[in-house]
Amino acid sequence: MLRPSGRAANQLRDISITRHYTRHAEGSVLVCFGDTKVICTATVEEGVPRFLKGEGQGWVTAEYGMLPRSTGSRMGREAARGKQGGRTVEIQRLIGRSLRAAVDLTLLGEHSITIDCDVIQADGGTRTASITGACVALVDALRFMQRSKMIQTDPLRHLVASVSVGMYQGEAVLDLDYPEDSNADTDMNMVMTEQGGLIEIQGTAEQAPFSEDEFIQMFTLAKEGISELCEFQRQSLTD
Amino acid sequence: MLRPSGRAANQLRDISITRHYTRHAEGSVLVCFGDTKVICTATVEEGVPRFLKGEGQGWVTAEYGMLPRSTGSRMGREAARGKQGGRTVEIQRLIGRSLRAAVDLTLLGEHSITIDCDVIQADGGTRTASITGACVALVDALRFMQRSKMIQTDPLRHLVASVSVGMYQGEAVLDLDYPEDSNADTDMNMVMTEQGGLIEIQGTAEQAPFSEDEFIQMFTLAKEGISELCEFQRQSLTD
Amino acid sequence: MLRPSGRAANQLRDISITRHYTRHAEGSVLVCFGDTKVICTATVEEGVPRFLKGEGQGWVTAEYGMLPRSTGSRMGREAARGKQGGRTVEIQRLIGRSLRAAVDLTLLGEHSITIDCDVIQADGGTRTASITGACVALVDALRFMQRSKMIQTDPLRHLVASVSVGMYQGEAVLDLDYPEDSNADTDMNMVMTEQGGLIEIQGTAEQAPFSEDEFIQMFTLAKEGISELCEFQRQSLTD
Amino acid sequence: MLRPSGRAANQLRDISITRHYTRHAEGSVLVCFGDTKVICTATVEEGVPRFLKGEGQGWVTAEYGMLPRSTGSRMGREAARGKQGGRTVEIQRLIGRSLRAAVDLTLLGEHSITIDCDVIQADGGTRTASITGACVALVDALRFMQRSKMIQTDPLRHLVASVSVGMYQGEAVLDLDYPEDSNADTDMNMVMTEQGGLIEIQGTAEQAPFSEDEFIQMFTLAKEGISELCEFQRQSLTD
Amino acid sequence: MLRPSGRAANQLRDISITRHYTRHAEGSVLVCFGDTKVICTATVEEGVPRFLKGEGQGWVTAEYGMLPRSTGSRMGREAARGKQGGRTVEIQRLIGRSLRAAVDLTLLGEHSITIDCDVIQADGGTRTASITGACVALVDALRFMQRSKMIQTDPLRHLVASVSVGMYQGEAVLDLDYPEDSNADTDMNMVMTEQGGLIEIQGTAEQAPFSEDEFIQMFTLAKEGISELCEFQRQSLTD
Amino acid sequence: MLRPSGRAANQLRDISITRHYTRHAEGSVLVCFGDTKVICTATVEEGVPRFLKGEGQGWVTAEYGMLPRSTGSRMGREAARGKQGGRTVEIQRLIGRSLRAAVDLTLLGEHSITIDCDVIQADGGTRTASITGACVALVDALRFMQRSKMIQTDPLRHLVASVSVGMYQGEAVLDLDYPEDSNADTDMNMVMTEQGGLIEIQGTAEQAPFSEDEFIQMFTLAKEGISELCEFQRQSLTD
Repeated sequence: MLRPSGRAANQLRDISITRHYTRHAEGSVLVCFGDTKVICTATVEEGVPRFLKGEGQGWVTAEYGMLPRSTGSRMGREAARGKQGGRTVEIQRLIGRSLRAAVDLTLLGEHSITIDCDVIQADGGTRTASITGACVALVDALRFMQRSKMIQTDPLRHLVASVSVGMYQGEAVLDLDYPEDSNADTDMNMVMTEQGGLIEIQGTAEQAPFSEDEFIQMFTLAKEGISELCEFQRQSLTD
Repeated sequence: MLRPSGRAANQLRDISITRHYTRHAEGSVLVCFGDTKVICTATVEEGVPRFLKGEGQGWVTAEYGMLPRSTGSRMGREAARGKQGGRTVEIQRLIGRSLRAAVDLTLLGEHSITIDCDVIQADGGTRTASITGACVALVDALRFMQRSKMIQTDPLRHLVASVSVGMYQGEAVLDLDYPEDSNADTDMNMVMTEQGGLIEIQGTAEQAPFSEDEFIQMFTLAKEGISELCEFQRQSLTD
Repeated sequence: MLRPSGRAANQLRDISITRHYTRHAEGSVLVCFGDTKVICTATVEEGVPRFLKGEGQGWVTAEYGMLPRSTGSRMGREAARGKQGGRTVEIQRLIGRSLRAAVDLTLLGEHSITIDCDVIQADGGTRTASITGACVALVDALRFMQRSKMIQTDPLRHLVASVSVGMYQGEAVLDLDYPEDSNADTDMNMVMTEQGGLIEIQGTAEQAPFSEDEFIQMFTLAKEGISELCEFQRQSLTD
Repeated sequence: MLRPSGRAANQLRDISITRHYTRHAEGSVLVCFGDTKVICTATVEEGVPRFLKGEGQGWVTAEYGMLPRSTGSRMGREAARGKQGGRTVEIQRLIGRSLRAAVDLTLLGEHSITIDCDVIQADGGTRTASITGACVALVDALRFMQRSKMIQTDPLRHLVASVSVGMYQGEAVLDLDYPEDSNADTDMNMVMTEQGGLIEIQGTAEQAPFSEDEFIQMFTLAKEGISELCEFQRQSLTD
Repeated sequence: MLRPSGRAANQLRDISITRHYTRHAEGSVLVCFGDTKVICTATVEEGVPRFLKGEGQGWVTAEYGMLPRSTGSRMGREAARGKQGGRTVEIQRLIGRSLRAAVDLTLLGEHSITIDCDVIQADGGTRTASITGACVALVDALRFMQRSKMIQTDPLRHLVASVSVGMYQGEAVLDLDYPEDSNADTDMNMVMTEQGGLIEIQGTAEQAPFSEDEFIQMFTLAKEGISELCEFQRQSLTD
Repeated sequence: MLRPSGRAANQLRDISITRHYTRHAEGSVLVCFGDTKVICTATVEEGVPRFLKGEGQGWVTAEYGMLPRSTGSRMGREAARGKQGGRTVEIQRLIGRSLRAAVDLTLLGEHSITIDCDVIQADGGTRTASITGACVALVDALRFMQRSKMIQTDPLRHLVASVSVGMYQGEAVLDLDYPEDSNADTDMNMVMTEQGGLIEIQGTAEQAPFSEDEFIQMFTLAKEGISELCEFQRQSLTD
């Protein structure tokens, strides 16, 4: 098997994480997984959603969007159609759950952090890149909150990162790009902590069902990949 | 550990699958996983969505809803709010993908099958009950198509069923009801074929991340549970 | 004239009213007028709509929906289309007005009761079955409020029930089913109290205008029919 | 009993029907029932709605709106809220059904006539004024179609008109204005043909249920009132 | 050059401004620029939008609509389509800004004035007629507020009026009607105070770009036209 | 007077125009006017909107959006609110009109070009930066169409660019940034061709009305500024 990109089965694409990408947000990151490029911003606001009022804890949520021409053919703008599509909703819920797992919400006080992930250019894996970049933006927002004395203690439990794995031409591969993604038998998105704890796992058999053995192969690749991604996150955070 | 229901860790709730539940649909099933009750209907229609026009294949899709008072407190009616919520969208996409995996779409001709899953009463696990019941309604719809000569060959590849598993008070348990679901550390929904092939896996760490070992325990329970559910499906289909 | 169902002109379909049909609602009824089956639930909530704030009275309102495949061909799901259709709006307003006439709103305190009528299977007369079943669910909700000391006095003024009448092949008939409904010259829905007081009357000449004499014939049938329906309501409420 | 306006119980308000009120529409009427003023326009278009394609018949439909400040306090503009309210939907469906009863749709060919009723100033009875004025605009549109050879034969079956009746302080009264309408025990809208055939009847007990006897009194008033209104229609159409 | 209407290049259409056109609003004006007819009402309400709460000033805003058949062919009703079109939004924002410039908002107290401009009949220039008529309705609303002691001081800074100018067949013309508007090279809408101060200027080259010289010609015509329009406003306000 | 940025009254901010910014679009430009950064992409598609079918010409349209955290405080995502705001609608209509003026639509054939302008970071003047950058993306799209033989002749009439001018502390200034924009007396956006022809002019008196003299001062600044911007466009297009 040769991957279209020529990468080894366990090889990530070129990863870059650029902090302070835009000026206004409390955290702002440009994350690139190869040709997939996502701007992740973190916004800190007073108050929490209604269902948490008075619970003495904070909230983290996420929104996701793609620029209409981030893809090969133009997608209709969701704001113009008046509705977020099902895929968008599914992805932003995944990002939100993943990031909430990174934070001790009771240490946030009654503050909300909204993570916006906007895809500038798409080449597969936009949701995994989004989670990985968003976690760095989140850390910057938490640092901002500590610097400005909104909170005393660092609420970060651990970094979280995400990567896709799949079965491509009978073999498990890491970090699928678009040409692989559209031909994979199975596509699985994993979210893990830097310690290797599982946060989210979403796997779909696109063609034939996958076996337990294939599952374990993909799982193993994902663990290694996420370990590398967390290293990229840590490096960017010490710059 | 004692489950609130007193069930054993690997014990399903009482399962019932009633075919021909309503009169008009080509397939109509009432499925009960304990107190969770869902009406699943399958509708056969000529034609396919625009993106499949002229491809010579069929389509299977799903929609999901909950009656406003299927739950402990009343949920606003989505039709009245003018919008399906994120959870609804996420679930109906999962049901649709799961059922498409049960069928050889090229043998459907240019026909569409729409599965409607409407929750009459909820007590945890509405999406897994929906998939399990919907598969039976789908088989009835495929039989209808064969009887009425819309198609020659049976497009069914295999039955699919679904069950939830979770870590509850440190132990893996099968088929969580609402009291367990709201207190579980981890909640995982598995969709498999009757041969044990994996179709979908969606796991979320609600509290602490879960380990690979816990994952394997849950996986094992799920396989057994789905095997039993497929037996219920087969029995109901021979009535 | 022979009615398609073989019923006499003044004969109701088989009527059944099943209380405690689902578990969560304060009132929950399955009502069947022949093959028309509707789940009616009553939800009690604190507070009133804004326009009644501080008036010291309560409110009763209704919502109506049909499962997409309750009918012969599938209707688009209103939640998915993002909008309730005109027929739905018209029906739920009728149900709400009818039930408000059953209750002394000043004795409800600042509570709201929402009646949800969801049609599981349709064969004509869904709005009349809805009103008839909803009134029983409403009574159960009022009893709940008294048992739980939310109110002291029973706010029920009288039972209300509803039935359709029409001119079918030149003759007045009671409780039209779908084959009659789609061929009737006139279709009239009546809502009355158990004492025979008129609450709502909605008649439409589908083909030719109807005369005063025909009106009186239909009116007479409706009175008898509603008297019988109230008897069914009373029986179910004493079970 | 003295009506607030000083009118006799069987007395209509001052009625005026002005044709050719605006310039562009095929039929354009300003109708006034006292201080209730409605612009009714009829638009003729090629083609029919999808559900009638190829049936060889035409269609008549109606839309209704109120200028935001047609009423005592400003109502939110429905276009700005993004949604027609339930009352609007109910009324425009009533107007549409009433006007379809005036026309032999099979003689319209595959043409559609859309009636727009826009309330400039409201003082009770906007739906009855709308129907009465719209029928005149409809006749002008039918004349236009004949003049321009779109159709050969006049599809008009009969004029239709509409009036409200109610029980006010224990007495039946005709053509309620706003002060009466908001205090009436019962409010009933009748639509009839010029020959006295019933097209629509919609009665609601606002306070106490009404008796058969009261119903007959109101019915009698309505027949007289509609007979007068049809005379106003005929006069305006001969100008 | 001959204008289709035979008017001189600097000649307004017949202008009329009728106050107290409808009964309920605090200001109600029918304004006609030739065959363009707009009802402008001003509604006074307690309170201000959220973004102004506690600022101790008032607010003036506008909404705009066209009756569906105010135009040559019927436009879909925005309330039925569930959305105001882009042109509508653009126009109502222009009207709102223009009228806010007429008033010292700090003298309004925490009150809001909503101007509704509803086009009954359109023949070009609906936005300029709307602004011109709305200003008169606004003055009536301000007088109402003074009479009813809601405010002490007159917040009116100056009258504002609006007119269109354009390049038509190479020549600058004033107050374009529809036949001119649809063939003009350039279309410019000017809003000015009665003293000739500029409030808004919106010019669009429909065909070829326009030169500075053409701009000055149009500007000069607009100043004269607005001066005349303010005279019409003053006359109507002294009636 | 000293501008907050220290710029001279007639001095543009630092301008940069980067072509081929993203990979998929036929034209893709990052344009910066100081800290205002906008991604402008041009998408070429077969076919034209319905109102142009069969007219033998093409179409150019634009959509505009801001990333939620492109601004100092987070703006709600329009896709999530289900609606584009009035300001968005107004701006995208302006961009579309401006670009259509740059192109001979009859030479486009039945093709559509959609320009998406997405603001990554905002510091005043997003609409003028959008137009200026979009024109370059448009030229790239036209070149693509010629290279791929979709069209024979270059449809570009002239470059168009846009800049804002305003009265700030009594003096006319060019290219306002956010601190100036929020305190200016007058704000005017000009769109011109490279030859100095006027395409669009939109001026608003934010505080006091502006005089003809002030208008001429601003106009003069705008002409110079646009001349410089067109030079930046030409340079980027020869890279």
